[in-house]
Amino acid sequence: MSETTVQRRPGGRTARVRAAVLKAALQELAAGGYASFGFEGVARRAGVHKTTLYRRWGSRENLLLEALLELGRERVPIPDTGSLRSDLIEYASEVVASATTPEVEAVVRAVASIGDKDPRLGEAGRRYWRARIELAGEMVDRAAARREIPPGTDPGLIVESVLGPIYFRLLLSREPLDAGFIEALVDLAIP
Amino acid sequence: MSETTVQRRPGGRTARVRAAVLKAALQELAAGGYASFGFEGVARRAGVHKTTLYRRWGSRENLLLEALLELGRERVPIPDTGSLRSDLIEYASEVVASATTPEVEAVVRAVASIGDKDPRLGEAGRRYWRARIELAGEMVDRAAARREIPPGTDPGLIVESVLGPIYFRLLLSREPLDAGFIEALVDLAIP
Repeated sequence: MSETTVQRRPGGRTARVRAAVLKAALQELAAGGYASFGFEGVARRAGVHKTTLYRRWGSRENLLLEALLELGRERVPIPDTGSLRSDLIEYASEVVASATTPEVEAVVRAVASIGDKDPRLGEAGRRYWRARIELAGEMVDRAAARREIPPGTDPGLIVESVLGPIYFRLLLSREPLDAGFIEALVDLAIP
Repeated sequence: MSETTVQRRPGGRTARVRAAVLKAALQELAAGGYASFGFEGVARRAGVHKTTLYRRWGSRENLLLEALLELGRERVPIPDTGSLRSDLIEYASEVVASATTPEVEAVVRAVASIGDKDPRLGEAGRRYWRARIELAGEMVDRAAARREIPPGTDPGLIVESVLGPIYFRLLLSREPLDAGFIEALVDLAIP
């Protein structure tokens, strides 16, 4: 099946296979961690041939990156409520709701457990978070355009100031991720 | 050996055994992760008998918690420079320097990989971070006493706003933890 065919039929068999493979990849990562993550297990879980994965993704890092990006896109939409404070509260609440589902939490823990022994995966992780933070930075850009915050405010820094403590509580301190915490966090993050 | 003897001779054999065991516990965790962490491996590494560990710590969670608390105390002193901004910058720089050493990074990743399947360890983790955040909160309390920041500012929230994005970059986004990032983070965290 050629790339041209793939692009012509986005809702066809190729799209279904892709969706099944990405879902299987996340399940595989959640079940066994990154150490045992590979094309073989994902192919078995998705019911496709291993060579299909090799041909399409080339490396397990590429497959994992695409699965994670898809997960982030699906689960955490970027709100546009007209105020930065309520945008960030809504966004942070969605991040918490998504990251605390058992399957996503397992994936996040598996990703966090991987050291820098694997440079390709490190690069994939950087690209994944850069894309997510840039996407969320739109909320800050819109607030700057509305003159709600000083011009020149770094959107990425504000997004990281909200995401950082959320993942810190989830992965390390295990303190509650409740509405009061999210509001306090957002109020501190807005310059 | 009774508890009384332990308290009377802080620099004696008991203290040396304790130090050796805590060091071995961190090495064991860094080497094999939490799944394989246990009294047996730690005892072998420290050159002591397994029953010594059972008698003194009772559970692997208690041992790990004490080792982590000791690590935090040793590595990250709480600065008192006279200004909250420079206190937090110095503190954050020490946190980064400590957390990015290969052995501490491996321990942090191992801790982050552990889900809530183990409630005793979850509780140990909460106690560890509560103690560290409370200790660091002194910087904020002193700044409030100096009237540098508004009274009633939550010290824990400010500490978490600095620690959160640091561990987020370390564990997830893998972006650089440089001086510019630390300063920007601290400036945003000070109310």
